Amino acid sequence: MEIRVRPYGESDLMAIQRIWNEVVKAGDAFPGETPLSLQECRSYFASQSLTAVAEADGRVQGVYILHPNNIGRAGHIANASYAVAAEARGSGIGEALVRHSLSQLAAHGFTGLQFNAVVSTNKAAIALYEKLGFTRIGTIPGGYRLLDDSMIDIFIYFHPAPEEKRKAAKK
Amino acid sequence: MEIRVRPYGESDLMAIQRIWNEVVKAGDAFPGETPLSLQECRSYFASQSLTAVAEADGRVQGVYILHPNNIGRAGHIANASYAVAAEARGSGIGEALVRHSLSQLAAHGFTGLQFNAVVSTNKAAIALYEKLGFTRIGTIPGGYRLLDDSMIDIFIYFHPAPEEKRKAAKK
Repeated sequence: MEIRVRPYGESDLMAIQRIWNEVVKAGDAFPGETPLSLQECRSYFASQSLTAVAEADGRVQGVYILHPNNIGRAGHIANASYAVAAEARGSGIGEALVRHSLSQLAAHGFTGLQFNAVVSTNKAAIALYEKLGFTRIGTIPGGYRLLDDSMIDIFIYFHPAPEEKRKAAKK
Repeated sequence: MEIRVRPYGESDLMAIQRIWNEVVKAGDAFPGETPLSLQECRSYFASQSLTAVAEADGRVQGVYILHPNNIGRAGHIANASYAVAAEARGSGIGEALVRHSLSQLAAHGFTGLQFNAVVSTNKAAIALYEKLGFTRIGTIPGGYRLLDDSMIDIFIYFHPAPEEKRKAAKK
């Protein structure tokens, strides 16, 4: 299966909305807990540094957003969120999205990519991030509230921008 | 010197603005790099879960803000920022602010307090947080841009809400 990751367009919005809200409703990965209306999607995905989709078999099967993790003097570190359609999981879409986001960091002025809230039960995401070279920075105890209102740990992960790694290697 | 920490009021705004912008301009602690106008202060400090000031010798000498560190399913962890007037540093104002913020967590529905960007050169803040029982969760390499545009590490710190600690001790 060939996977193509590209910037989203207006015509992708309904597919993005479906994939995104599926993850929201599952309540085991995203902080957000309220599904987005199409109008909310329109402004939310337009407000990112980058929103890109993964297409395979002629359909949008995944989406990611990239934006500054903080403001001002800490705004050069990026944060990202990824969503893959439930029926497409395990087929490499997530990996294509994460790899693409890493490749886009420098072009958007970011020196690294930080995840603030990787839910500790999200084994597929954790395995993928570690495979792609993300470092687990630490654990926030009870940082995520599941659907049953129990609290579960979240992990913080970090990956320098690939260009930064090359610069470091040259020193 | 007696220090009293209390919720801010409109009449504190000019003192808060001066103290806050002093830290912004120093460019070695806050992510924000643009001083706030009085009107921006008015909306910014009103939008927090809590804004409180430290008064001593009849003057406002410090301020802190408390708000959710994230949205939705990760919104029960708080984040805070503290500012102490330059001429008042080393007199216990900062400690009074941090202690007060910890005491207010449960009342605002927070189970813990997380700092995302403690600049690694901010020795006074680091010593204070560690004295008060904060745990260093990890380090984001080069996460802060100093005034000379060099990048410096930031630390992530966490402290459970005091009530949570008591509950854990009872188990």
